[in-house]
Amino acid sequence: MSDRSYYSQAFHGPFETFDLGHIDLESGYRLRGAKIAYRTIGSLSAAKDNAILFPTWYSGTSGIIEQAYVGSGRALDPGKYFIIIANQIGNGLSSSPSNTAAPFGAAGFPSISIGDDVNAQHALLTRQFGISELQLVLGGSMGAQQTYEWVVRYPDFVKRAAPIAGTARATAHNKLLVQTFIDAITSDPNWNSGSYAQSSSVHRGLSRHARAFAASGFTPKLYATEGWRGIGFTSSDDFVTAFVEAHFAPQDANNLLVMLRKWQNGDASRNTGGCLKTALSKITAKVSVLAIAEDHFFPLADIEAEQQMIATSELKKISSPWGHLALFGTDPSYNLAIDTHLNALLSA
Amino acid sequence: MSDRSYYSQAFHGPFETFDLGHIDLESGYRLRGAKIAYRTIGSLSAAKDNAILFPTWYSGTSGIIEQAYVGSGRALDPGKYFIIIANQIGNGLSSSPSNTAAPFGAAGFPSISIGDDVNAQHALLTRQFGISELQLVLGGSMGAQQTYEWVVRYPDFVKRAAPIAGTARATAHNKLLVQTFIDAITSDPNWNSGSYAQSSSVHRGLSRHARAFAASGFTPKLYATEGWRGIGFTSSDDFVTAFVEAHFAPQDANNLLVMLRKWQNGDASRNTGGCLKTALSKITAKVSVLAIAEDHFFPLADIEAEQQMIATSELKKISSPWGHLALFGTDPSYNLAIDTHLNALLSA
Repeated sequence: MSDRSYYSQAFHGPFETFDLGHIDLESGYRLRGAKIAYRTIGSLSAAKDNAILFPTWYSGTSGIIEQAYVGSGRALDPGKYFIIIANQIGNGLSSSPSNTAAPFGAAGFPSISIGDDVNAQHALLTRQFGISELQLVLGGSMGAQQTYEWVVRYPDFVKRAAPIAGTARATAHNKLLVQTFIDAITSDPNWNSGSYAQSSSVHRGLSRHARAFAASGFTPKLYATEGWRGIGFTSSDDFVTAFVEAHFAPQDANNLLVMLRKWQNGDASRNTGGCLKTALSKITAKVSVLAIAEDHFFPLADIEAEQQMIATSELKKISSPWGHLALFGTDPSYNLAIDTHLNALLSA
Repeated sequence: MSDRSYYSQAFHGPFETFDLGHIDLESGYRLRGAKIAYRTIGSLSAAKDNAILFPTWYSGTSGIIEQAYVGSGRALDPGKYFIIIANQIGNGLSSSPSNTAAPFGAAGFPSISIGDDVNAQHALLTRQFGISELQLVLGGSMGAQQTYEWVVRYPDFVKRAAPIAGTARATAHNKLLVQTFIDAITSDPNWNSGSYAQSSSVHRGLSRHARAFAASGFTPKLYATEGWRGIGFTSSDDFVTAFVEAHFAPQDANNLLVMLRKWQNGDASRNTGGCLKTALSKITAKVSVLAIAEDHFFPLADIEAEQQMIATSELKKISSPWGHLALFGTDPSYNLAIDTHLNALLSA
């Protein structure tokens, strides 16, 4: 398998691609011939008033999100809603280091911001679908960062929002944690400042990155109770290797780094001169802020501190031994709680 | 400054050295001319019945422990007790990669177990001081591992024990976390499988290791509340660099790795064929199990699960935004809680 074939519909389920043309990035660079990959489920109503947007989290694609969150009988019911899952820039399906030509491909890919993603998604919604209103924008982790950016930037566009397990502005602790993930990859001499022939040659760095991710992404309780047995793993080493390392091993190192740096710099207060309170006061959408109580990536207290600055919001706490990575949909009680909170928000 | 000069009394305060002679390690190797460095404060009574043993934690030495835990008016009062702080093997003061001759020095240093440390300390106490009873053995983190080993191995020797923020057996999560610290160092090409001329050439790996340590060792709350301001740092980056990186930068990479691997393999149930319950049932000392509620290295639930297997124990919870690294003594309320619990234990 070549590195590229991983980023295909065979691996990630069906998706379509919209040509954005040239997009001007916050970094000052222009990305020419940019593309956004997206998946839609359900039908857009004639009035175009039943759309939901769900941007992807770090290293995820539209396929896992559809699998974990969308379905008949779920809150995100394609019988009612037109659900658009937007792959974030850098994830390998949308424009990314791995699919962009020199001099902007691979190590030359420009720095991307959460704001760049929201601009690309806005273009997709308005130009491809003629949508001017979203019933809901939601996302987990980096998807929550994009959700906050949406409601701060486009208050009139978004009726409801559900940022899950993420913050509007990365905290000092979060930046430090993400730096350890970056360090795990860039410390591999085969990464070679991003100039490698095959990402698989960076396998030691990717493996270290996966272990660091697994150590903080799940809770100590998950390991203590061997909660991974329920999804088919035989030991903690097997779980970390066959679940987490296997998830990252086929991914492109430069793609991951573009996303990690975007995560680390996530900051909705860029829009208001660095004042987070002012940024969050722009929100008019009804917001259900969903936090995972045991989350070590985006701790409850950090999420709650932001939630208290949003007048139209409520905080809902979900408990899971899977911690931050309950996002993946492996914990039925987490999935049930998500649907309960989203149903309440959608019917409000 | 050479690498070695760091491991001196100039940096770590006064200590003495006891020649252990040849010691046979659990690994099967014999360490010839082994030495244990220790610090005593107070006077041994004529009856030799006022001794307290305090082994060191990971990367710590007797100096920091004396500073943080010992003093007139503290629970560990040298006016009452003869306090022996034993430097663990591998910490640079006792026998370590950095001070042992070839072929057992540097990368050739044999694997060390928590049991090897306890054997060395037992030899120190009995042969150097003629002590056959300890009023108290206590320690934090890897010091707690050694404390558990003591009370399982030498129940008649120890009247009281206070393992702080540590476990008798490393959990799967703990092993994974320690592996990320190991990975951070060994991923540096200059580490070169342990064969380097100067540990300072491994500075990139040591810096990554420090950042990973800081990301989990302190709590997100410490960063959110800028709790490091109280001890003289100006930003989270300054704190991580000037406090944590500065702590590790002068240390020898192979020394740190000997301790990390010892930590990872810490398991008092080695003494009872792998059955932890049987191991802990051997304990006759009165045990005050001290846990830090916010600890991400040794989470409360993991500590509590072991404590419930010790009939003679009580669990005491201490809360600190400093998390695991409250051990360093930077949080006055942690220090006060420690003294309260140790005073209660010592008067029992």
